[in-house]
Order: sequence, then C-alpha cells, then structure tokens
Amino acid sequence: VTRVHVWGASGYAAAELIRLLAAHPSVELGALESRSHAGERIGDAFALLRRLERSFDEPGSVVACAQSGDVVVTAGGTGEAAAIVPQLLADGVRVIDLSADYRFERRAAYGLTEWNREAIAGASLVANPGCYPTAASLALLPLAAIAAPAAIVVDAKSGITGAGRNPSVDALYAEVAGEIRAYGLGGHRHQPEIERNLRERGIAAPLVFTPHVVPLARGMLVDAYAIFDRPLDAGAVAAAFQEAYASSPFVVLLGGDRTPSVRAVAGTNEAELRVDVEGRTVRAICAIDNLGKGAAGQAVQNLNLMLGLCEERGLRDRAIVA
Amino acid sequence: VTRVHVWGASGYAAAELIRLLAAHPSVELGALESRSHAGERIGDAFALLRRLERSFDEPGSVVACAQSGDVVVTAGGTGEAAAIVPQLLADGVRVIDLSADYRFERRAAYGLTEWNREAIAGASLVANPGCYPTAASLALLPLAAIAAPAAIVVDAKSGITGAGRNPSVDALYAEVAGEIRAYGLGGHRHQPEIERNLRERGIAAPLVFTPHVVPLARGMLVDAYAIFDRPLDAGAVAAAFQEAYASSPFVVLLGGDRTPSVRAVAGTNEAELRVDVEGRTVRAICAIDNLGKGAAGQAVQNLNLMLGLCEERGLRDRAIVA
Amino acid sequence: VTRVHVWGASGYAAAELIRLLAAHPSVELGALESRSHAGERIGDAFALLRRLERSFDEPGSVVACAQSGDVVVTAGGTGEAAAIVPQLLADGVRVIDLSADYRFERRAAYGLTEWNREAIAGASLVANPGCYPTAASLALLPLAAIAAPAAIVVDAKSGITGAGRNPSVDALYAEVAGEIRAYGLGGHRHQPEIERNLRERGIAAPLVFTPHVVPLARGMLVDAYAIFDRPLDAGAVAAAFQEAYASSPFVVLLGGDRTPSVRAVAGTNEAELRVDVEGRTVRAICAIDNLGKGAAGQAVQNLNLMLGLCEERGLRDRAIVA
Amino acid sequence: VTRVHVWGASGYAAAELIRLLAAHPSVELGALESRSHAGERIGDAFALLRRLERSFDEPGSVVACAQSGDVVVTAGGTGEAAAIVPQLLADGVRVIDLSADYRFERRAAYGLTEWNREAIAGASLVANPGCYPTAASLALLPLAAIAAPAAIVVDAKSGITGAGRNPSVDALYAEVAGEIRAYGLGGHRHQPEIERNLRERGIAAPLVFTPHVVPLARGMLVDAYAIFDRPLDAGAVAAAFQEAYASSPFVVLLGGDRTPSVRAVAGTNEAELRVDVEGRTVRAICAIDNLGKGAAGQAVQNLNLMLGLCEERGLRDRAIVA
Repeated sequence: VTRVHVWGASGYAAAELIRLLAAHPSVELGALESRSHAGERIGDAFALLRRLERSFDEPGSVVACAQSGDVVVTAGGTGEAAAIVPQLLADGVRVIDLSADYRFERRAAYGLTEWNREAIAGASLVANPGCYPTAASLALLPLAAIAAPAAIVVDAKSGITGAGRNPSVDALYAEVAGEIRAYGLGGHRHQPEIERNLRERGIAAPLVFTPHVVPLARGMLVDAYAIFDRPLDAGAVAAAFQEAYASSPFVVLLGGDRTPSVRAVAGTNEAELRVDVEGRTVRAICAIDNLGKGAAGQAVQNLNLMLGLCEERGLRDRAIVA
Repeated sequence: VTRVHVWGASGYAAAELIRLLAAHPSVELGALESRSHAGERIGDAFALLRRLERSFDEPGSVVACAQSGDVVVTAGGTGEAAAIVPQLLADGVRVIDLSADYRFERRAAYGLTEWNREAIAGASLVANPGCYPTAASLALLPLAAIAAPAAIVVDAKSGITGAGRNPSVDALYAEVAGEIRAYGLGGHRHQPEIERNLRERGIAAPLVFTPHVVPLARGMLVDAYAIFDRPLDAGAVAAAFQEAYASSPFVVLLGGDRTPSVRAVAGTNEAELRVDVEGRTVRAICAIDNLGKGAAGQAVQNLNLMLGLCEERGLRDRAIVA
Repeated sequence: VTRVHVWGASGYAAAELIRLLAAHPSVELGALESRSHAGERIGDAFALLRRLERSFDEPGSVVACAQSGDVVVTAGGTGEAAAIVPQLLADGVRVIDLSADYRFERRAAYGLTEWNREAIAGASLVANPGCYPTAASLALLPLAAIAAPAAIVVDAKSGITGAGRNPSVDALYAEVAGEIRAYGLGGHRHQPEIERNLRERGIAAPLVFTPHVVPLARGMLVDAYAIFDRPLDAGAVAAAFQEAYASSPFVVLLGGDRTPSVRAVAGTNEAELRVDVEGRTVRAICAIDNLGKGAAGQAVQNLNLMLGLCEERGLRDRAIVA
Repeated sequence: VTRVHVWGASGYAAAELIRLLAAHPSVELGALESRSHAGERIGDAFALLRRLERSFDEPGSVVACAQSGDVVVTAGGTGEAAAIVPQLLADGVRVIDLSADYRFERRAAYGLTEWNREAIAGASLVANPGCYPTAASLALLPLAAIAAPAAIVVDAKSGITGAGRNPSVDALYAEVAGEIRAYGLGGHRHQPEIERNLRERGIAAPLVFTPHVVPLARGMLVDAYAIFDRPLDAGAVAAAFQEAYASSPFVVLLGGDRTPSVRAVAGTNEAELRVDVEGRTVRAICAIDNLGKGAAGQAVQNLNLMLGLCEERGLRDRAIVA
C-alpha cells in the first residue's frame, strides 16, 4: 500500500482524484492539502465526498508528511507546482503534476498513458496531460502510421468543470445554461500541447483548434478532422486505430451505429473513439470525462504504472450513471 | 417621456430592468451606473443586451444626472441604497429601490403592486418587494377575506439568478446542475417580509418557510399551504381569489388541468396562480419570473403607476420563450 | 451465487438494476426480458451499459429460465406483473415487484426496507415501494414515536426518470428544461400508498401531497411537514429519528449546516434526511435517488435480505458523481 | 393586413411561428390546422401560448379558409406538403413551406433571405431553408467572393427542438441532459442542401458535415472551416463578409473579443457571425436560433418580403432572455 498525498486538493479534478484514491485497493490517502479550504471538512466542500470523514489539511502538510516511496499529486494553479515539486523529488517522493507546469519539460515524463507507458513507469515526475490534448491526441496520433495530413481542425466541446472551481461569472449556472460559445480563439493554452504531441509523432500539419463550453458539468467531446491531399483507405485507417489501441483497455473503439457518448464515459477513465473516412478527410471523434481520462482518472492510470500495478487497478468502477 | 436612471446596473435584475426600460415607450434611459463595470460595454457583460449601444456609467453618474421629475431605480447590494436615496429624494427625484433596504420603512410605499396601488401611485420612494415575498403574498393574501389559518407552510423553488451575479461556488453551473437543495433554513431574510405582509392583512399564523434552489436560470414556483381548523368551501375560496385579482392583468388564475408554469411566465411580469382546497388545507401555487414580477417587471409596473400610466405599459411583450 | 432475472428490463429503473446486479458479488445475471427491445443489445439502448455484452431476451425467457431458488425482479408497467408472478411463485421462484401492483396486497411483504426487514427477509414476494412513498415514509414514520400530527403536507420534487422511458411530450428535454410544475394534483397514485404507510404506524392526519417535476434526470427531494397542535421538543424529535435509523446504514441523518442533497445521493442507495422543529411544525427533508433507494437500489437491498446477505452487499459503490 | 394560415400547427417551429404572427402588426392569424391536436386549446399544448385564446383547427380548415391573397405556411412532416400546396397555389394563395419538400424544386424560391431576396419577394412558393443549411450557408457563402476552398468542414451543435415534438426516446430530458453526441454521420438530410447552396455560388469543395445534439432546448452553433491551398488575407476576408451583409439587419458580424452566442440570438431572427483567418483556414462561426432564423423567424422575414413590407417587420422584439 502506497501513500498518496494531494496538494491543491480543493478543485474539481482533485475531488475526483480523492474519490478514486479513497477507493483504490493499493493506495492509502495521505495529506490532502488545501490553502483555501484548510480545516474545512471535505464533505462540506463536495457533496459527493460527504461520507469521507476527513478535513483538508493545512498548508505545508504535504511536504511535512511525504516520505521517500510516497507519491504526491500536485493539483494547484498554473505556476504553483514549482514551489514544492523540486523538494519532493529531492526527497525521493515521486510526483504526478496535474497542472500545465511540466508538460514541456524534458525531465518530466508526459503522462499520455497510451502513448508513453514505458517512460511513465520509470518516471519520478509525470506531467499529466491537459484534457483537450488527451482527447485530441488519442484521436489523431494513430494517423501517424498512415500518412501526413495537410491540415487539421480540432473542434472541441467541454463541460464547465474544465474551467475550475474558482468562481467566475462565466462559470455561473445562469451563464452556462442555454448557451454554447467558442472561447480562447487563436490562443488557448492547450494548443501548443496538442501541436507538440502531434509533431513528435510526425504530424506537422497546421492545427486550427476551437474549444467551446457547452451546458455540461463534466465530459468532453472532441471532433478531430485531418484533411489529406488524397483519399484514404477506410480499412487501413480503421486498422491503424485498432493496432494503436489493441492493448489499451480504456480506449473503446466504436463502429456501426455507435457514436462516442459523453454520458457513457462520464465518471470513468474511458475514452470512446470513432473514426470515419469521408473522401480526403478523416474524422475521429473522442469522448472523455474531462475530470476522468482528462485529469484524475489518467493520473491514477499513470500512478498504477509508476507503482508496477495493473493499469486498470482502482479504475474499473463507473462513477457516474447520470 | 420620463428619464429613468439605474444605480447598481450590473446585476441580473438590473439587466432585465434595462431591457424593459429600453423598450418602454414612455421612458428614456438615463445613467446606468455600475461601480464594478464602469466603462464596460453593457453588451459585453450581458449577451442579451448586445444590441444596446451603451456602456456602464461611472460612479456618481446617477446623482450627477438625475433631475427633479426623473426616476431612479436603485439596484445595489444590501445596505448600499442609503448612500444615495436620501439625496435623490431631497432633489425631487422619485426612487424605486430593488434592494431589501426600505421594505420595512414606513416612509416608503411597499411595492407589491396588486395590494398597494394607491400608495405606490403617490409615492416618492417605493420599496420593491423580494421575489419570494411577491409570490407568497400573491398566493396567500386573498385568504384574509375568508378565515384565519392556523398554520402556514411556504415551500419555494427558485432559479439561481435569485442569488445574484457576484460569483460564488454555490452558483456555479457544476454545483447547480443535477441538484435541488433547501437553504437558509430558519433564517432566510425574506421570511420576516412575508410574515409582515400577511400580518398586515390579518393573517397571523406561524409561518414555516423553506426556500430551495433548483436547476433553473430564472423563474420561481411557490407552493403555499394554509392549514385551517375546519374544512373550507372551495367555491368561496375560488371566489375570494377571483375578486382579489379581478382588476389585476398580470395575475392569471388557472383552473381545470392547468398548473402554474415557470416557463409560461419566464420573461414576463405575470404571476400564474392556482388554488385548491383539500380538506382543511388550501394550497395556492404561484409561478413568477424572479427577475420579472419578482424584481424588474414589478419595478416597471410600479413605475407605470407612479407616472400615471397604464399598469401594463411596456410590459406586454414576452421576453422569454425558452 | 444466486441467479436473478429481470422481467420488463428496458426502463430506467431496470437499467439501473441491471447495472447493480452486474456488479453484485453474490449474484449472476439471468434472463433480461424485454418485450419492446427483445434482441437489441442492451448497450445500444443504454449508453451507460455499453460495456455489458448482452442483449435483451425474448418474451417468455424469464419463465423459461427461472428455477426454484432464483429471484425474479418484475419491472413491467402497471397491471402487467399478474401475468407472470403467480406462476413464478408456484415454481418456487421468489419475486421482487417494482411496479405498484402488489403494494396493497397482504400476501406480499412491503419492501420499505428500514421499516419491514423481518417480513422482507422471509418473503416469497416483495412489493418494492414507490419512490415518493419511500422518501415520504422515511421522513415521517419516526414521528409516530412522538405524537400524532394534526395535518401533513408533503411537497415533493422529482427528476423526470420517474415518468419512465416510454416517450411522451411531457418528458421531452425541451419541455422539462427551464420548467418546474406541479402535477397529479389531488390524485397521484402514490398518495394512498403514503397514507397507508403512515396509518399503519398510527399517523392518521390528513395528507396533502404535491408532486412536482424539476429539471433533473434523476434524484428526488421530499419536504415533509407535520403540523402538530402543540410545540414539539426538538431534542425529542431528533432522538426519535436517531433511534429509528441507528441500524440503517443507508439513512444518513444530517445536522448543522448540511441539508439533503440530490447530488450527494444520486447513483447510491442512500437517503439523506434532516429534521427541524419550527414551533408546532416538524419539517423533515429527504433526498433519494428515485432510481436508487426509490427503485433499483432498494430492490437490491431487499434482495440482500431475502438472500441472507449483508444489507449493503453490492450497494456500496457510488454510481454517480455528477 | 394579410391573413396567414398555418398548416401542421403543433410542432415547435409552428408554435414559434404562431407567436410571431400573433404579434405581427401587418398580419392576422387565419386557420391553425393540426391533425394531431385538432380542437385542443393551443395554450394547453404550449405553455408559452397560454394567453392566446385559440384552439387548433380541424383538418381541412386551411384549404377551406385560405383565399386568394392569403399566405399559408406549411409546417408538416416530410412529404406531407404535396397534399395541399398545389391546390393552394392554384387558388392564388402564396405558400411558405417549412419542410424539406420544396428545397430542391426549381419552381420554389429558396428562402435563404439574405442571398435570395428578389426571388423571394416575387415568389408564390418559398421553400424555407433547414436550420443547419441556414447557419452553414450564412457562414460560408461570402467566401465565394474570395477564393475557392479545397476542403470544407462543418461542425454543428444543435438544441433538441430541431428533432421536433413527436416524442422519441432520443429527445427525452433524461437522454439529452449531460450528453453531447454526433448523429446522422455521413447521411444527414441537410448535407445535400448545404452542398447545393455552396455549389450554386461556386464553392465546390467536398464537405464533411457533423451535426451534434447538445443539451439545449433551442439554439444552434455552427463552426464552418474552409481550408484553402494558400494563406488568405484576413482583411480581404473580413471585407467580403462586411460587404455580403452590409444591408442585412439580422446578420450581426462580431469582432474583438465577442464570439457568437446562442443565448444572444435565442428568441430572435438574428444570426451572429464571426470570421477568423488562421493560416490557410478560415473559421466562420454562426449562432442562430434553430426555431428563429432557422425556421419560423426566417419564414416571417420571407413573408415580409413577399408582402412588400420591411424585412424586420414584426421581428424586432426579442423573444427569449434566458
């Protein structure tokens, strides 16, 4: 049993992580540190964790408690992890960072599990991917084995928990209900992460990325379109996807009448993926839970690899049936 | 044409008021003062007001612009109106206050239109009622003509705009969706206002008031139960309601299979009301838009009375068809 | 391991039941019979059951497969269970009926688990309670130990899955979103069931019952108000509730600032319950998942008793985190 | 004042049309014929039309009542209009058809107002466009003046009223809430209509069209991506859009930080449109109300042209503020 601590424990992804860790058979909960909620009962902050008899721990708790052999998941805001990660690593504590801070650092293993298992398993520091990059990369990377697209469009629809739990007008119920809007046009911070992931596998086509907020608490659907210079063979494309994910239990390839469903994956670590060829365009649609495979679920999947456990350990129970 | 200024212009009720005033044929918009949004285009704050080519005015604008004969609607937070209202009144400016600050002051006319028309028409200062007190009072006051209940229960369900637009965790989409919760048990600030309204008409029974938040942006349904010591005559009760609202165009009494509908009244100044007698209990259900009859709509209705206009002026167009 | 068959397997409660049974460690899935969906893959009908590699079985399958020692859960429409239950019982098959058909029959044990454990444990036929009666009875029955109320008001708010999965205009997204409405005034079929439950424990006061549909897929909040002739002692009331549910793991009594939360119980078999005394009125608020404790969850809880298992077997995992 | 009759009056688009016509200053309501709801009060079917004291008329009413000079809007299901339209035309009655039946017929004027005003003004029969084709065409047609794209992707998100009011499982609240799903892949009936509109203006690039249902009652956002062989000049693109819609009051071009908003256009006949150039790709985003500009609103806009009225007549009041 490994002790896992959570630093920055009061956001939506952290709450989902605590839920998963509390039920994980090979893990025990360590410190659950929150600057903003220190001392508050976790169940008062999150109705879903009411049965968990714990309070948020004080600032400094994670550093004080974490020992060599433990794992810390850092879930603070942008730029905050540097305050704690170097010291933890020096102390022999392994770290999974949920923020964007280490996603472009070479000394961190990039935690897109299905495409980087070996590095993750041996890493001291794992940079957990963003939710959009997770879905977009799962949808597009198998194409690298086929041909180089000439252009890529990623049209993404996300639930509002992706914006975090710090209250802002844009995330209010009265603003999100009844609305769909594109945002971050031309400058979303996840775009370079997606582009890097693609380029590293040889997909260098220019990317147009359009994220939208839709009236959902959690869940994300990403439609990725790769436009080629010539028509592709549908069978070859399907085969490439099947080969890419043959050993990946959380990637579910759909065919026939089934299209990826946000409700089907909500509360799980699954990614539903469907690929179609229409002339010179390949459309790959990927549904994930932005708090599951897009954040906390993938963190636990990576944790399992780091601990030498089965990838699915603690991740088989559906968390949402809505 | 009367100039109407809005002070505290950046909340949900104020936005609804601006929408109504902008279309009102006997009114022109004066200063639209907002401390927090000064200088910002109104259409950037409220998607629904995008076609209004105006910006929020600077602090001090209302006092600087309002002249004798104008009307100011004060829509600030609790306790803020006192900073401006006495001076406005001294300058011969009439005021409608949307906050709770003057609802218990004798020098203000209480703006529950259907029950206080004469005082409102001649008032310099109108205290616009709270949304819950509006719906609960419309539902219960006709009973004063029948008999004195022994106990009263008001079970209210409100959309989240009633909590205002200052961002708080409780008002986030991810917290409100999929949830119903009672709140403010035993101490909601609207309870004394409801009790006062009832007592003034002779209904002195103890009141239990349970407000709930439901997953709605706007709209409110109030179920008011009056328990009597003896069975009531359903015909007499129905007659009392019909008589009470015979000259009130915005109170729509429903019978047959129709029950009050939040969607039917959303975006309007209407109150749908249905009353049933079940043995010793009278159940009166009232649906209003908390931003309409519960705030901005009733403010315009009161404005019309103060200006000697038809009560319905500028209030006949439905604003929501959702 | 006991084989459990489901008859009428294509409604919302049946789908929730299949989900619970598929994960239940002491149960194996038998026939899953559906007249309307026979032959269709279950995962095509329910996105949440996509990983279940099963199809709905043909009409007749349950009778053909069920053997002495098995359990059948009948989940058909009103009046349909009689076509199959007598024969099953004659064959030594135990039955849990989710419909309303046996709730007033003496030869069936009424499946309100917390109040009828002994009879359920020994029963051949269990009549699972309605969702409203479950919540209302849990909220009101402890009062029987205190005093007899003079009047009772039950104001209930339900998600739309309570209306079933047969498509009707009233259950369309475009009708339910943005709306709250009372329905079934004066004649909801659950009213006699609630009254019977209360009367059997000595609570004979007249009941006014007002069910509402709110914009929720699943979950239910019931506010039960008991009006007495004299003020009650809050400590005695609290003690009565604590005693009533001291051995009931699924009933969670809340105090302090916590109020029952639909999201906290969604996907579980839990009932959150809070009781307050306000003068002569006791208000007990109960939150359940209408498909969980209000239907499939309670069915599994009863199944556990019938099989001599721990009441919580197979019911500890949260199913929803939404 | 022209009499306008509605045939097939009980769907969502028809209800919106009735709402608009009832408030239109140059129109009087004629027969409102519904086979399925004949004799039912319109306000019982649609909460939003409760104040309209009318019932649905019997089958045959439109043909019986419509006289030369009147206009009939046919809003029946696919393939139904042929039963009535030829006779109406023969009787000198002008027709606007909301179904897909005449969109490919040369004798009908295609009712995409902004691109076909002259033909519409003189037409006896107008084929009102589909909602997706309206938004996609408004977003893409101005590009015809610039250059020919090599590939086009249209990723569309629609509220569920687009599926009509005939109840189906897929349109139930419990299925739509919490979900986003692509549908009709490779075969949506609106795809040929979009392709035809583009080809007629010289845009012959292959189109990939992906419609999605999102949790909205009404409203639609369409992201249209045109991929060119060479980078385009952003200024030239912006100029082309400004020129295309300079005289179109209902097309609102957005720049700066503003992105098209479904809530901003809900209940109106407006289309919000924003165009950005990213390298070789032009992204044009268009928000409309699928029942407004996507159906009933555009029908009234066309009606105005046919009657020689100002295009905006009866369409300036916002219908939704949600």
